[in-house]
Amino acid sequence: MTIAVDAMGGDHAPGEIVRGALLAAEDPQIRILLVGREDAIRAVMGHSRHAGSVETVCASEVIEMHDSPAQAVRRKKDASLVVCGDLVRAGRADAMVSAGNTGAAMAVALTKWGRICGIDRPAIVTVLPTVKGRVVVLDAGANVDCSAQNLLQFGLMGSVYSESVIGVAEPRVGILSNGEEVGKGNEQIRAAYALLSESSVKFVGNVEGRELFHGRADVVVCDGFVGNVVIKVGEGVVELLKGMVTHELQVKPWLKLPAALLAPVVREIRRRTDYSETGGAPLLGVDGVCIISHGRSSARAIANAIRAAGEAVKHGIVEQIGRRLS
Amino acid sequence: MTIAVDAMGGDHAPGEIVRGALLAAEDPQIRILLVGREDAIRAVMGHSRHAGSVETVCASEVIEMHDSPAQAVRRKKDASLVVCGDLVRAGRADAMVSAGNTGAAMAVALTKWGRICGIDRPAIVTVLPTVKGRVVVLDAGANVDCSAQNLLQFGLMGSVYSESVIGVAEPRVGILSNGEEVGKGNEQIRAAYALLSESSVKFVGNVEGRELFHGRADVVVCDGFVGNVVIKVGEGVVELLKGMVTHELQVKPWLKLPAALLAPVVREIRRRTDYSETGGAPLLGVDGVCIISHGRSSARAIANAIRAAGEAVKHGIVEQIGRRLS
Repeated sequence: MTIAVDAMGGDHAPGEIVRGALLAAEDPQIRILLVGREDAIRAVMGHSRHAGSVETVCASEVIEMHDSPAQAVRRKKDASLVVCGDLVRAGRADAMVSAGNTGAAMAVALTKWGRICGIDRPAIVTVLPTVKGRVVVLDAGANVDCSAQNLLQFGLMGSVYSESVIGVAEPRVGILSNGEEVGKGNEQIRAAYALLSESSVKFVGNVEGRELFHGRADVVVCDGFVGNVVIKVGEGVVELLKGMVTHELQVKPWLKLPAALLAPVVREIRRRTDYSETGGAPLLGVDGVCIISHGRSSARAIANAIRAAGEAVKHGIVEQIGRRLS
Repeated sequence: MTIAVDAMGGDHAPGEIVRGALLAAEDPQIRILLVGREDAIRAVMGHSRHAGSVETVCASEVIEMHDSPAQAVRRKKDASLVVCGDLVRAGRADAMVSAGNTGAAMAVALTKWGRICGIDRPAIVTVLPTVKGRVVVLDAGANVDCSAQNLLQFGLMGSVYSESVIGVAEPRVGILSNGEEVGKGNEQIRAAYALLSESSVKFVGNVEGRELFHGRADVVVCDGFVGNVVIKVGEGVVELLKGMVTHELQVKPWLKLPAALLAPVVREIRRRTDYSETGGAPLLGVDGVCIISHGRSSARAIANAIRAAGEAVKHGIVEQIGRRLS
């Protein structure tokens, strides 16, 4: 499998991106095309042991975080992100990974590859931990305004993703709402409820914010505005609690030793909740595999995103969504 | 100050409600009217030391959680919640507190007291912890579909609340969105952004989900659908982490002792994050003081809600909102 990686996208590019690619390249099944400015990539790569399965592809331009996605994709034809899209389109790569401008990554995928037949809008998938396992949430931020029809399509795509990548048989699909009861939700949610009830997914109705983490559904759909807010609030709460613990240990230094003894507990919880462990968020609905990583991605997060891209290719997620919708 | 308390509303009514009222009655400034079925209240109250400043007001009916708010308020004229509203309207009480059906509490306040002039819709206020202090979030669930004009009014009310009850001078008001930059957000958010920019509040622009907890704004507005989801997700994440720690300590029992030593840290964090500590959520925009408590409220939560009602009366929050809007 060949994965095109945008070496210039993300807050810590190209350093962490290149190091992440080298980490992922330890897997003999994965071949990586690192796309970006050759000198910058070379400077980080040095003489790594796995450099053999990592090839550099030159791209002279960079799409910045503040660039307008549509304009940047049109004007910066030799941007690393655009070249990644071209490589997949030309069949030279099976998937692409970027921690850069999310809107631009979507624009590249949409303009270079197009959508899967039957999908009006692609959606970003995030996998969150629950008390029992994991829940697939989409859309995590691709579309701020969604129709009920969009939400129905998200349910179908999420169901395919949960089944083929997470391995859940007959995934239960729910809709994020402000209460469990039928009739809860705003206009958009109530309309989507009706469509999902009559669809081929195993629909379990409204899911409240708290229940998201109870494992009552394997897939939860929402619009990209709400999805973005939910994920960021989740991160914010974890950071807030972490900050509170740190502060408490500063004012009560005699508790630092027992706290240090709990390192294995903290490590396990971090493993289950840290976004860098899940790697990146697949963009579903476009006719190709695109993994969008967090802007703040570390090498570890990038390596996991590359592995996630490999999984999506291996499970033929694009073909499966196409089959489900036809 | 006299507070009317709905003794029959909530998952643990009347037991926890009556015990909460007795706790709050330890404050000599607070007089309580416990509204509900006299025998049920008496059975819990017994011969408490503070029973003297707690008076029972009979109400034969109860509005259940599953009752349709509008219908219940019309038909159950002798329901405890309805009688609470009547007591405030008649001037026999200065405020009301209920842990029962939220929609019915709103309907009672709206039909018995009306709205403050200039407010189209009331909003539920929640106060969340941040790294630096606290943030006032509204609407936390009163209105699932809101106009930009509604969000502007929430900003004005939240600003008054932050200033007079929390004690923040010149509160910074933000709008919950999927990114900080101008132009982020869905249609409703962008329209509200324009209105807030031109209003009398100290507007600080878009606030992301993560930043909510960074203390970048003292007041954050959103519609009641998003507000409900945000608050429930926050609760869900805290519960999830708690569950993970419990599980880890079960599989690594040798870590139970160091964990037990950290009890003071856990206690302090619980004090700052537990909803029962903040008591209840004020319903702002109606012409009277109404505090809505969590359905699962304990005696401690009810006592705090009664104190919060007292604070709102003492600070003349209704009059202040009226003045700000005129």
